Amino acid sequence: MNRFLLVVLVSLVLSFVSFRELDEKPLLGFSAGAADAQYALEAIFDSHLNANNLDAWMKRMTSNPQHVGSPQGKANAEFVRDLFESWGYEASIETYHVLFPTPKLRRLELIEPVKYRARLQEPPLKEDLSSQNTADALPPFNAYSADGDVTAELVYVNQGIPDDYEVLAEKGISVEGKIVIARYGGSWRGIKPKVAYEHGAIGCILYSDPRDDGYFRGDVYPDGPFKNEHGVQRGSVLDMPLYPGDPLTESYAAVEDAGRGTISESPTIMKIPVLPISYADAEPLLAAIGGEVAPADWRGALPMTYHIGPGPAKVRLQLEFNWDLTPAYNVIARMEGRDEPDRWVMRGNHRDAWVFGAHDPTSGHVAMMEEARAIGELAKTGWRPKRTILFGSWDAEEPGLLGSTEWVEHHGKELEKKLIAYINTDSNGRGFLGIGGSHILERFINQVADDVTDPQTGVSVLKRRIARDHVRQVESGTTLQPAGMDYPISPLGSGSDYTPFLQHLGIASLNLGFGGENSGGSYHSLYDTYEHYSQFGDPGFEYGIALAQTAGRATLRLANAEVIPFRFTNLADRLDEYVEEIKQLVDKMRNDTEVRNKLIDEDAFKVAADPKQHYNPPVKEEPVPFIDLSPIENAIAFLRTHAARHDANLDQGINDQADTGYINFIIDGSEGRLTSFTGLPGRRWFRHMIYAPGYYTGYGVKTLPAVREAVEQRNWSSVEKDAVDRTAVIDTEVDRVAGGIAMVATGLSAITDETWGHD
Amino acid sequence: MNRFLLVVLVSLVLSFVSFRELDEKPLLGFSAGAADAQYALEAIFDSHLNANNLDAWMKRMTSNPQHVGSPQGKANAEFVRDLFESWGYEASIETYHVLFPTPKLRRLELIEPVKYRARLQEPPLKEDLSSQNTADALPPFNAYSADGDVTAELVYVNQGIPDDYEVLAEKGISVEGKIVIARYGGSWRGIKPKVAYEHGAIGCILYSDPRDDGYFRGDVYPDGPFKNEHGVQRGSVLDMPLYPGDPLTESYAAVEDAGRGTISESPTIMKIPVLPISYADAEPLLAAIGGEVAPADWRGALPMTYHIGPGPAKVRLQLEFNWDLTPAYNVIARMEGRDEPDRWVMRGNHRDAWVFGAHDPTSGHVAMMEEARAIGELAKTGWRPKRTILFGSWDAEEPGLLGSTEWVEHHGKELEKKLIAYINTDSNGRGFLGIGGSHILERFINQVADDVTDPQTGVSVLKRRIARDHVRQVESGTTLQPAGMDYPISPLGSGSDYTPFLQHLGIASLNLGFGGENSGGSYHSLYDTYEHYSQFGDPGFEYGIALAQTAGRATLRLANAEVIPFRFTNLADRLDEYVEEIKQLVDKMRNDTEVRNKLIDEDAFKVAADPKQHYNPPVKEEPVPFIDLSPIENAIAFLRTHAARHDANLDQGINDQADTGYINFIIDGSEGRLTSFTGLPGRRWFRHMIYAPGYYTGYGVKTLPAVREAVEQRNWSSVEKDAVDRTAVIDTEVDRVAGGIAMVATGLSAITDETWGHD
Repeated sequence: MNRFLLVVLVSLVLSFVSFRELDEKPLLGFSAGAADAQYALEAIFDSHLNANNLDAWMKRMTSNPQHVGSPQGKANAEFVRDLFESWGYEASIETYHVLFPTPKLRRLELIEPVKYRARLQEPPLKEDLSSQNTADALPPFNAYSADGDVTAELVYVNQGIPDDYEVLAEKGISVEGKIVIARYGGSWRGIKPKVAYEHGAIGCILYSDPRDDGYFRGDVYPDGPFKNEHGVQRGSVLDMPLYPGDPLTESYAAVEDAGRGTISESPTIMKIPVLPISYADAEPLLAAIGGEVAPADWRGALPMTYHIGPGPAKVRLQLEFNWDLTPAYNVIARMEGRDEPDRWVMRGNHRDAWVFGAHDPTSGHVAMMEEARAIGELAKTGWRPKRTILFGSWDAEEPGLLGSTEWVEHHGKELEKKLIAYINTDSNGRGFLGIGGSHILERFINQVADDVTDPQTGVSVLKRRIARDHVRQVESGTTLQPAGMDYPISPLGSGSDYTPFLQHLGIASLNLGFGGENSGGSYHSLYDTYEHYSQFGDPGFEYGIALAQTAGRATLRLANAEVIPFRFTNLADRLDEYVEEIKQLVDKMRNDTEVRNKLIDEDAFKVAADPKQHYNPPVKEEPVPFIDLSPIENAIAFLRTHAARHDANLDQGINDQADTGYINFIIDGSEGRLTSFTGLPGRRWFRHMIYAPGYYTGYGVKTLPAVREAVEQRNWSSVEKDAVDRTAVIDTEVDRVAGGIAMVATGLSAITDETWGHD
Repeated sequence: MNRFLLVVLVSLVLSFVSFRELDEKPLLGFSAGAADAQYALEAIFDSHLNANNLDAWMKRMTSNPQHVGSPQGKANAEFVRDLFESWGYEASIETYHVLFPTPKLRRLELIEPVKYRARLQEPPLKEDLSSQNTADALPPFNAYSADGDVTAELVYVNQGIPDDYEVLAEKGISVEGKIVIARYGGSWRGIKPKVAYEHGAIGCILYSDPRDDGYFRGDVYPDGPFKNEHGVQRGSVLDMPLYPGDPLTESYAAVEDAGRGTISESPTIMKIPVLPISYADAEPLLAAIGGEVAPADWRGALPMTYHIGPGPAKVRLQLEFNWDLTPAYNVIARMEGRDEPDRWVMRGNHRDAWVFGAHDPTSGHVAMMEEARAIGELAKTGWRPKRTILFGSWDAEEPGLLGSTEWVEHHGKELEKKLIAYINTDSNGRGFLGIGGSHILERFINQVADDVTDPQTGVSVLKRRIARDHVRQVESGTTLQPAGMDYPISPLGSGSDYTPFLQHLGIASLNLGFGGENSGGSYHSLYDTYEHYSQFGDPGFEYGIALAQTAGRATLRLANAEVIPFRFTNLADRLDEYVEEIKQLVDKMRNDTEVRNKLIDEDAFKVAADPKQHYNPPVKEEPVPFIDLSPIENAIAFLRTHAARHDANLDQGINDQADTGYINFIIDGSEGRLTSFTGLPGRRWFRHMIYAPGYYTGYGVKTLPAVREAVEQRNWSSVEKDAVDRTAVIDTEVDRVAGGIAMVATGLSAITDETWGHD
């Protein structure tokens, strides 16, 4: 520590300590003295944060469309790189050449029983100056839709998720050779055309129903924040649950001269044409559909009776794309650590948008920039982090996490060795802190969130979030989370740039963001502008500052902690819950299957059905076998037992006797030991055995995914094998973590890198 | 038994028995021989039923508006009386003179911020000939609205039930001096203006939201069965939960020269003007309301953002009525019993409608007529029921159960002595049998419903209903009702003519009707016509016949059974459930109150709220005390113990040794012993201590109402006293029933009428 800074810090500590409660727990991973210095550092960090910067940067960066490949996108990369350099970082642009299709022809017509040509455009608004800068804007489209010219009857498939097709099957309605229209919601959008294609559909139209994203929710833009009749949600339909990133370079980097697969053979590019439309364009199409009335929970808020079809509505959908390679510009900035330069902490947010992207992603990106600037201010006094801090400003996240994935694939070997944690943000808004991440960081991030003050209420952002959850629990009549435990952070599925870090490499990760009081319909539309955001998103950028305080603290603490603040009992607790969920799921499925089979034997479904409606009663299902999860349970018990002493030491604060170097050597790759090199069944890119996006949810997480998805899909013939195999892998991995922790706690040594490295 | 008939019966029995399963349980209340004769009788009864009669009568009776006081209403009374006479009944018209206000002036205008004058009319449709016969039709109105001319800002109050006003209070929105607009649903309509008035509103507009009753549900009339944009639900807003019947003659009959209260002092007439409108008329009003956006579950299916107000929408509502006494014509028909002429079984259905009333009530009424005709056919052969059968064709049900209530009040003393059961029907349709009633008739009606074949599926109507319930339970993930128990019939609240019989006099009652596959929006509108019903209600009147078979069997069995088929274990079982519900309710309220109070102490509601919206956080509530329900539990246990032997005897079939006359003497007034002469707290007219309509639900039942409503309303200062007082009454009554049963079972005698008569 620099002497001059020490003086500053001590004086600050004196004034600062009085504000802290004396009975607070030790700062996780810090000795008492180091904790005081850290708090003082954070106070200085806070003092540098200025909301005006966020405002000015957002205004500038979102003045023109900034999708990957756009002139503004490139200018923003250079602007950000230059700023990082001006703040004292080594900064560079790392470029990948990724497949990014853009629309050449988009045409949708209702041709029977009446004619209607869809508008497929979002009009600029006089109340929103940004929305008028459309010269470079991409019109509404779904990236990685197939080219196509298809004509067929329409079928309304509700949200187009697997459950909906079960309902259609009951009604004897097939989508084979038809074009489906699905409303957004219920899953990540890419699931909808994927499932439609699996059922034989030849085209897919997605639309935003006003019930989910329009006037039903609240006043529409520009009167209010919600989607107006012409607003459209763009977005990718790349099959990211298989693998994200450039579709032509699975698991390796899309550098300029990389070998590439072909478009036609890429498994993640959709096989049918897909187009997103507004509810103004959807209304005449839906109104023209006849046939059976849609079930109650399928109906939206358009003023009509929703029918399923097929037909008499018939549409022609024509789509052509430019299938070009486009440069994606990641900006990577680096501040080297003073003590452990080869242990890295990384902070990231994507920079590319679908159009202007004020909320998504600029609101998070400008907070990250302000963190970097404030850390640069700290560094100007000579201070340096203990460990190396990296910043990543990702390009091409929107089409499929391309910028971050290619970078991670490019630098994977080094990252596995050096990167101890990745902290992601994306869109941000007014409201409540959302925390997702690795459970070994659960207590750590609880402490961070309890040290940041909510700008609207003056309590900590953690306490406000807990209060909201408690009120919701009371209002919905569920049981209150018992006091005294850590606030449970959410396991991560997908939908932002943590995925390659966490799920491909096994880097402990966090995903942070505020929201809940800024609901609106600007998502992926032309109207996600500075005007919209500064009015309805986070007026005054108070929550931008709160995000910078939260993610900034997390970064600084991970970079400075004497012992890397991984706490394993939290992981064991949550793993117990996940195993219990799967056991209950299997028991429920077994019971439900028994009951349904009995009712099928009794003809109950047939007798209960309305004879005037077509109905295929359910058929009997194979009884649900009993499944042995004990290997996982034993591994968790082993982990819990052996983590107890280490976690207790951590909770009491680091003392002078601790061999922190040795402890860190043991635990710094813990998360990676929860991965399997062979990946999940059928999707090898996803290597984490605890967290994955659902194969049929897309963003939604599946914990213990190998076992859970086999169960959900009733793969009984393979589930035992899968369950045992995968369980064995988890077992091995958890054993290793537990074994390592046990050795730390018991003082064992003689551990080689080979023993605890990645397999 | 007539000798000729006996020969017919025996030959029928021989051919009939082979169709019956040999292992069936004895017919409740019958010896083996009598049961065979009864089955044979029912087969003949069935053979007389003819759907064409239902069709022809409906067509005739609904050809013109047939509300109380209409020319068609009077003609129909005479037509029905003449038919009954032609079928061999003594029949007469019993007339009461009831207050029935009809509209003189109806005017509703939006005067700010834009002008709109409500149409307030339902146009005749060219596709529906009946709808064109509007000469005598009453326009849309709410009977017993106050006269008034009020101008005020509008407030949208969702369904206008007490819960909604709690939400308004949280938001700091008052309806004091305002006009409220509420959508239909969530309670009986009369609750809405009553609660609005209690909160200071000066006018009330009711409308049918298309989400509940319009295009959201399905295709609209005439394309489909649902309410079109101009359809309006008429209906009474008399405060029937206080007392039904003529508002000027509480508890006594409105005969021509009766003394009458004044209109201004009648406690059941609304104090503010109330008007029902269509969704076409509601749309401009709702669209003009500003202020906060309504909560998600308040929003309907009109294509707009629903706001709460108050204002800027301002309306003027002008209503004037003719407050005339109108003759209500009940038709009462009678077929005297051969053996026990002073034990009566009554079958009833109302005859009056709001306009044409094909579904409500003619669909049920014509089924009852066909039952009467078929019984008349039986009687032509010389057969007579053991007990006297009455038929009641009620007038003026729609304005507030006036015809039946005045008749019951008129003949109360005699009915208490002689009437052993009342079987009600009302509207009928295609689908599933609904059964409500006294639990002492639960097993009885289970047997009846298992002996009637569903016309669409060929299984019994009981089995079809159970299959539907089981399928719903499986689909909603709830536990299946264990097999082997009786199908649980619903306790009765209010909404049809069983109310004066069951809840005022304590006559064991049943309410029967099919439905569930005839959903539609014709209810209380101009479009409840023969055309609508024969297309969407019950095409071919198959379920009209099924209803006649069900209610006809119930009537014939109650009239002929050697032992009146009351089974008390069913009552004890259901009472146990109701007590358990109240205990769980109290426990849940206690726990919720504790948790909420704790969160209030922690400021959680304030911290969790959006500071940009007005919010009054909840205030602490008095802790929920522990309540002693043991007197009721002991009474139930006593009933169960003492009923066991009687019920066992009943289940085994009546044998030759049974002193059926004595048993019937003991049990024939059992239901009456569950009443209290002092009635429910604050509403003395309602005397049944087990079943009542909720004071704030209107139709919805509250079991053990004195205790349950005190608990629900948190009347903790009086609940202990009320609970104890009322419990003591139930205790006494249940004791009496149990004591009587015990004596039957143990052969005790020396029971005097005084001991077991009504108190």
